[in-house]
Amino acid sequence: MTDPVVNRLIEALRVLPGIGQKSAQRMAFHLLQHDRNGAVRLAQSLLQAVDEIGHCERCHTFSRDRICATCLDPTRDARMLCVVETPADQAALERTGSYRGLYFVLAGALSPLDGVGMHDIGVTRLLERANDGVVDEVVLATNFTAEGEVTAHVLSEQLRQRGVRVTRLARGVPVGSELEYVDLGTIAHALMDRR
Amino acid sequence: MTDPVVNRLIEALRVLPGIGQKSAQRMAFHLLQHDRNGAVRLAQSLLQAVDEIGHCERCHTFSRDRICATCLDPTRDARMLCVVETPADQAALERTGSYRGLYFVLAGALSPLDGVGMHDIGVTRLLERANDGVVDEVVLATNFTAEGEVTAHVLSEQLRQRGVRVTRLARGVPVGSELEYVDLGTIAHALMDRR
Repeated sequence: MTDPVVNRLIEALRVLPGIGQKSAQRMAFHLLQHDRNGAVRLAQSLLQAVDEIGHCERCHTFSRDRICATCLDPTRDARMLCVVETPADQAALERTGSYRGLYFVLAGALSPLDGVGMHDIGVTRLLERANDGVVDEVVLATNFTAEGEVTAHVLSEQLRQRGVRVTRLARGVPVGSELEYVDLGTIAHALMDRR
Repeated sequence: MTDPVVNRLIEALRVLPGIGQKSAQRMAFHLLQHDRNGAVRLAQSLLQAVDEIGHCERCHTFSRDRICATCLDPTRDARMLCVVETPADQAALERTGSYRGLYFVLAGALSPLDGVGMHDIGVTRLLERANDGVVDEVVLATNFTAEGEVTAHVLSEQLRQRGVRVTRLARGVPVGSELEYVDLGTIAHALMDRR
């Protein structure tokens, strides 16, 4: 019943992750009724980001420049290279303020069942990058999901074969949690990796 | 740490209702990493909708034309006028397939505490519209919230003063529900309005 132009907007909003038909309709109606300026700003930001944002040639995070600001930062410790699955994971690590090395952003994690192999996530580029003669330690910070663990395992084998020192983010009990409510696998790991 | 262009996109995505900082970041990263074509389509749809979609002069729903397709439809029963708060409510009524009259879309509901009065939601235009000599019955389909009920009450007084027949959507037990779990106010109304 709605106008085809409105319907096209509702359809287009469904590219957003986690947004179904109902939320998309609510968003479209909200923008048209209450925030047309916001809608125009959003459209312009989308076009500008798609146009200007590419990937850093060294670490493959999002960047407008050929080499991103983090890679060019001389105060960063170039001997450490932290491997993450996405720029979002990199952002989370940066917010902790406790890492001062460089990054390498994979294009996701290995997932053989979905046909995502070593080549798709950029393992070759990582191996080259880790062998630049400066990198001394690679910190694997892929997710602690099945895919992330497989990826970490494969990367660590490949890197160790090439003589690179590899570490993995510690598994353990999250800060602020009560043991009673922590899952058993996590407690078992925390016991094994006690220090 | 992220590029200002990406940050601007994250900020811009927050105009969407129900989207906070974290979801906006996830959306921005997802679009840039996995669906740049979708992002461009979304931007174009937003611009087209903002540019082309206005309000129907008769019923004030979203429309590209001066008068919307529903108002122009000769198979619709022009003697019935259904009053809703938003185009989304109109869409919900249309999907039932059980209403064949015309609509009048208010710009929301009365909310004296937020300073939203009769003029803001277009009551004067509704009163004119209902007095066109053809409308025989006005069905009040504002929401069954505090604001929607107040709006229905005020509208029904104003319309009755002008000699218009006014009805309200029935209150009662929702289809498929068990009495044990229905709230008491609803059961009380269903008892009163039994038929």
